[in-house]
Amino acid sequence: MSTWTKKLTTEQQKETERQMTMYLAGAHEVIPAADLKEKVARSVIEGKPLKIKLGLDPSAPDVHLGHTVVLNKMREFQDNGHTIQLIIGDFTGKIGDPTGKSVARKQLTDEEVKANAKTYFEQFGKVIDMDKVELYYNSKWLAELNFEDVINMAGKITVARLLERDDFEQRMADQKPISLHEFFYPLMQGYDSVELESDVELGGTDQQFNILMGRHFQEKFGKEKQVAMLMPLLEGLDGVEKMSKSKNNYIGIDESPDEMFGKAMSIPDELMIKYFTLVTDLTPEAVRATGALHPRDAKMALGRAIVTLYHDAEAAKQAEQQFISVFRERNAPDEIPNVKWDGPAEITVTDLLVSLSFLPSKSEARRMVANRGVKIDGITVEDPRLQVIVADGMVVQVGKRKFARLEM
Amino acid sequence: MSTWTKKLTTEQQKETERQMTMYLAGAHEVIPAADLKEKVARSVIEGKPLKIKLGLDPSAPDVHLGHTVVLNKMREFQDNGHTIQLIIGDFTGKIGDPTGKSVARKQLTDEEVKANAKTYFEQFGKVIDMDKVELYYNSKWLAELNFEDVINMAGKITVARLLERDDFEQRMADQKPISLHEFFYPLMQGYDSVELESDVELGGTDQQFNILMGRHFQEKFGKEKQVAMLMPLLEGLDGVEKMSKSKNNYIGIDESPDEMFGKAMSIPDELMIKYFTLVTDLTPEAVRATGALHPRDAKMALGRAIVTLYHDAEAAKQAEQQFISVFRERNAPDEIPNVKWDGPAEITVTDLLVSLSFLPSKSEARRMVANRGVKIDGITVEDPRLQVIVADGMVVQVGKRKFARLEM
Repeated sequence: MSTWTKKLTTEQQKETERQMTMYLAGAHEVIPAADLKEKVARSVIEGKPLKIKLGLDPSAPDVHLGHTVVLNKMREFQDNGHTIQLIIGDFTGKIGDPTGKSVARKQLTDEEVKANAKTYFEQFGKVIDMDKVELYYNSKWLAELNFEDVINMAGKITVARLLERDDFEQRMADQKPISLHEFFYPLMQGYDSVELESDVELGGTDQQFNILMGRHFQEKFGKEKQVAMLMPLLEGLDGVEKMSKSKNNYIGIDESPDEMFGKAMSIPDELMIKYFTLVTDLTPEAVRATGALHPRDAKMALGRAIVTLYHDAEAAKQAEQQFISVFRERNAPDEIPNVKWDGPAEITVTDLLVSLSFLPSKSEARRMVANRGVKIDGITVEDPRLQVIVADGMVVQVGKRKFARLEM
Repeated sequence: MSTWTKKLTTEQQKETERQMTMYLAGAHEVIPAADLKEKVARSVIEGKPLKIKLGLDPSAPDVHLGHTVVLNKMREFQDNGHTIQLIIGDFTGKIGDPTGKSVARKQLTDEEVKANAKTYFEQFGKVIDMDKVELYYNSKWLAELNFEDVINMAGKITVARLLERDDFEQRMADQKPISLHEFFYPLMQGYDSVELESDVELGGTDQQFNILMGRHFQEKFGKEKQVAMLMPLLEGLDGVEKMSKSKNNYIGIDESPDEMFGKAMSIPDELMIKYFTLVTDLTPEAVRATGALHPRDAKMALGRAIVTLYHDAEAAKQAEQQFISVFRERNAPDEIPNVKWDGPAEITVTDLLVSLSFLPSKSEARRMVANRGVKIDGITVEDPRLQVIVADGMVVQVGKRKFARLEM
């Protein structure tokens, strides 16, 4: 596994580099990148696709933008002719939690697993070509293992290595119990890679330990080692926690255009570039260009991009109009005084607030922005240096009571 | 499990106490003794035998006196009508060491397991009534377990609890690897008790963790909990290490009368009472009486007792004669000067050495004994205060060169 790159023709080298640049873009870490390059080079020389693995938990089939970070990367591999291996972890799902303590990990029936898988696939079809995907249920091989097989598997890993996993290490340190069966979840995931001879396994950075277990097991079982490709975790709408259904901070890819657009408008400013990079199909150049937009416009653009991807451009346009008009209706005209604006067409938010006599000084205006007390068209202003492009009908709000609809 | 003792008639109470006294004698620890008493009481009331479990490693079928400590205790249970469950751990034996590192734990074939078991039973028959024993191979149930069963089993124990086992704890502290499969050996032993619904499991004190695992698992699987009966470990002929074949410090119960007797003579003085208690059928009173013997005679008595148990009284007598005559031949008459003894018939060893002019003073004689330089009839004298009962033909030796055969 260290000679293929040396055998490349100039043409093949160009193709290898092209793919590598694409794969590495946006990835948090590739372990090890040199192995990925060797695998790509061999694939280019031999014309044989790589096997790109993604494991799925069958208990939570609602696909949201957090998942698409990995799915978008898989599509890049697919676009270059590589094979996607989707593994439904139904074996784990069928076992549930043997300690009976976790309600979350309840035992799923065959029917539930199948129904959840179907839900996944319908949604995945919006990102990857499901006709070209290889689909596996890991109970096919895991349910066949007997006690002796399990002991042989367990003989290939040390207790100390398992205790290195962050959550296990933390619980040992806190003297919180770890049930022995929990050690087997990473083992199963690793064994799937042995069975499927995967070349690359994708996952979020929180999957590093489990994905490297696949690499470890492949070596122990005499197979070629897979590469771990770790994608950044996408923070949810709260800007803090990883996007997930349970935190209710997600945008589902099956949601309506209006829901998607509205949720996109609530994403914190500082995550714009990350969202553009990870969940839209904008080129790196186009993503950089959004940095020049002011946050409200950037959010609008993000909302349009997301709706366009999972619905279409027309739906995106309508969702934007809808968002603006709903906002204006919610703040009905009889409740909001119209204010004739004859100031500059572009003005900092602090100057605007002082000009409207909403606040007595620029320093107080800055403080109000810092306290998240200022909204323009319903969106909280986060940067006191924000340049506002004044528009007819724009609603400026300070605290819960002071409103103005600007007339130009 | 805490009411049976209250239901006993006076007669039944006497019988319960009689059995308890017998079982507790010589045991290092019974965990918990109160549970054993309840079980015995119930057995007495209902006339139902208890199930007394002993697990056997199929890889080392040579039975020595160390094993008989536990076997003797089992025979007491058997004598009172309880049922012995012997479990051959063939499942473990067939797996071998999955890491391939341990030569000791090599994989055994079915034939080897069967042959080893047969060897066990032939020897066990010298202590317990094999016709009344229930015999099990644990592969019968362990080989039937699938991955899901194993995970369910693993869900009933925590990693921290397993790491409490002394050897695991030590290796973690020393940062020496523990392979995950090693966690399963105590689990298997515990699961055997679930399967067999054992009431009592016997073992050496080094088995405490594994036997309590059976108690833990029985509770987790909704069964009545077994009692752990831990017997002292018998030091071998070196007086330091646990008796075992690999240390070559053992007396095998299949050895010839002469080998047994000769080895018994080499046991250190301070272990006499322990050996009499644990490996002979002497009553506690008779054992106490041996304390009055001088060490050489005590050893002779122990040698006779052991040979009588595993051969017969006649063989014991012959072995003793043989031991003495072989010793005398080894120190042939032409090499040993005869010394006419007209001193007292009983004399301290130091006075004897000074009387024979072997040493100039009692203090030097004491020092020579302390340095293990004095032998009487080939046996090293360990106590300088030893009262020697002088016998015709007795050989006294100091260092490698000074000998005398006493003539009376």
